[in-house]
Amino acid sequence: MLLLSPNDGEIHATLTQRLAQVESRFRAELLSDLPNVNTLAEHVERYRGKMLRPTLVLVSAMAAYPERDEDEQFQDWVTTVATVAEMVHMATLVHDDILDEAEMRRRGATINHLRGNEAAVMLGDYLISHAYHLCSAIPLPAASRAIAAATNTVCEGELLQLHHREDWELGERTYFEIIRRKTASLCGVCCQMPVVLETGQVDSGAAVGQTLFEFGQKLGVAFQIIDDVLDLTGNPEEVGKTLGRDLAKGKLTLPLIHHLASVGASEREALVADLKRGVDDDAVARLREAIREGEGLDYARQWAERLVGDAKSSIEMQLPPSDARQLLVGMADAVISRRF
Amino acid sequence: MLLLSPNDGEIHATLTQRLAQVESRFRAELLSDLPNVNTLAEHVERYRGKMLRPTLVLVSAMAAYPERDEDEQFQDWVTTVATVAEMVHMATLVHDDILDEAEMRRRGATINHLRGNEAAVMLGDYLISHAYHLCSAIPLPAASRAIAAATNTVCEGELLQLHHREDWELGERTYFEIIRRKTASLCGVCCQMPVVLETGQVDSGAAVGQTLFEFGQKLGVAFQIIDDVLDLTGNPEEVGKTLGRDLAKGKLTLPLIHHLASVGASEREALVADLKRGVDDDAVARLREAIREGEGLDYARQWAERLVGDAKSSIEMQLPPSDARQLLVGMADAVISRRF
Repeated sequence: MLLLSPNDGEIHATLTQRLAQVESRFRAELLSDLPNVNTLAEHVERYRGKMLRPTLVLVSAMAAYPERDEDEQFQDWVTTVATVAEMVHMATLVHDDILDEAEMRRRGATINHLRGNEAAVMLGDYLISHAYHLCSAIPLPAASRAIAAATNTVCEGELLQLHHREDWELGERTYFEIIRRKTASLCGVCCQMPVVLETGQVDSGAAVGQTLFEFGQKLGVAFQIIDDVLDLTGNPEEVGKTLGRDLAKGKLTLPLIHHLASVGASEREALVADLKRGVDDDAVARLREAIREGEGLDYARQWAERLVGDAKSSIEMQLPPSDARQLLVGMADAVISRRF
Repeated sequence: MLLLSPNDGEIHATLTQRLAQVESRFRAELLSDLPNVNTLAEHVERYRGKMLRPTLVLVSAMAAYPERDEDEQFQDWVTTVATVAEMVHMATLVHDDILDEAEMRRRGATINHLRGNEAAVMLGDYLISHAYHLCSAIPLPAASRAIAAATNTVCEGELLQLHHREDWELGERTYFEIIRRKTASLCGVCCQMPVVLETGQVDSGAAVGQTLFEFGQKLGVAFQIIDDVLDLTGNPEEVGKTLGRDLAKGKLTLPLIHHLASVGASEREALVADLKRGVDDDAVARLREAIREGEGLDYARQWAERLVGDAKSSIEMQLPPSDARQLLVGMADAVISRRF
């Protein structure tokens, strides 16, 4: 289920081992003296997916600071930050499911469906609180500051998306503004965090920090676009979550935005009128069919490919060649080729 | 609307000025480049109430470190932490309103009632994220660490309360466990934070830190008990929020727990059966009447008075006499005498 499938290389073995450390640190941080809290927290483990964000932290550290690979303190901080990133991401999933009224996530029933919105709100808060608690164990305030700046932006993206719910005239510019903040900012900061840990500064001005941030951000945007595509084309069994929900919840996706922009005025008006009347399962199915027959999916895929191409060239220019750099390139490719 | 009514003393003038700094720092921290985010954040200002938590931070600092009163850097950190405490508290109010399905808070409609649960979830997250962002501007990781440890505990309290919703056999011990975590832990850490800032350690072992923590914690428990009493006896116009909601949402309060424990077995069974059938407005009114006629309210008030008495004697033993110490004593008294 990881974004990168393990192979025999030495670097994969190191990565697998460090991801296992992230998992155990995650579990240890959430442990409470209250059994009912532990039961809820254990449920979150089932949400674990591709480990994209912790992998970005770990591999960026290897690629940017190979000389730190045996430095126990530095690796400890990197593992901590990777765990924090996963915890923040899990919190957004738990709270997003309230937003989305989703009933299924990664083949398991969502917390809000099982235990009510109220438990989901508090469980998400518990995850966020522990993320900051863990992060402030690092004796560099810049670490917490950088993570918090990213989560500020994530929340702005969520609020902007909510503001534009059922705005069927949403343009590409606002769409990108939403996903840049909501999804890409955290991926960007994940790649940048090793530089924050090395320099002790949120913004050290180091070119490698800027390059890694932009690499992560572009990957994040591409990842979200492919999510949009899979929401229309994916196999629910493989993707493991309710499909077509973006539409049903009034969220415009890139293929739909392009589709609406590319059809004639009268067809667009008819489609928007249809959407405004309320989106039932039949309407979603009809629209999915129309988008699949048009150019919206190709257009979205091309956007994602262009972003991934840019991201790859920038790190190939900025970072010296290494197995870790190659792994970052492999992750970028996997964002496009993934089917779940 | 502040817990302490201003008078002519010099220390009140200082406090008023510092609370004004907290308000402006609060506003500055939440400012976004997105107008829709600012509109929501401005709404939160209307929730502002007694400023209990920032006042605890500010006055504890004055009482524990009078020699730091002119130290600009220390005062800057104290003001930051006071703002962080208010922001965390506001976040819990916004998220609590989702839990409670409350429709009215401090004479204004709640965010979830106005804009839906989804906006309330994200707005609360925005507040929490900014609280940590602001806190990590202080170059002492212990500051963020102490605040995060407290918010971990607050979330545990909320989850424990949720777990015991509609548990009509809830005992006093669990009741106190819930409010100690949910309400009192943040008040405790507010009083302790000046010691964290002075020593750079979450737990420096300084006796003054322990005394101030316990003072705040006892005040917090007493505050919550008086909230319970006001929920049964208060005037909705004065209290400014929907009353009787604790009951309607399946939350047992101290007066009710005592009432159920003090009536005979058959009356208790009848009351619990009544509660289990579902609590409508009439049932709430009948139960309120029964509690008012029994000893539950006096019992709860006595608990609060005992806690406040303990809290006052411990700081009178530990801290040298000063206007600031007198102000802490005044706050403790105000927790009991307040009518809103």
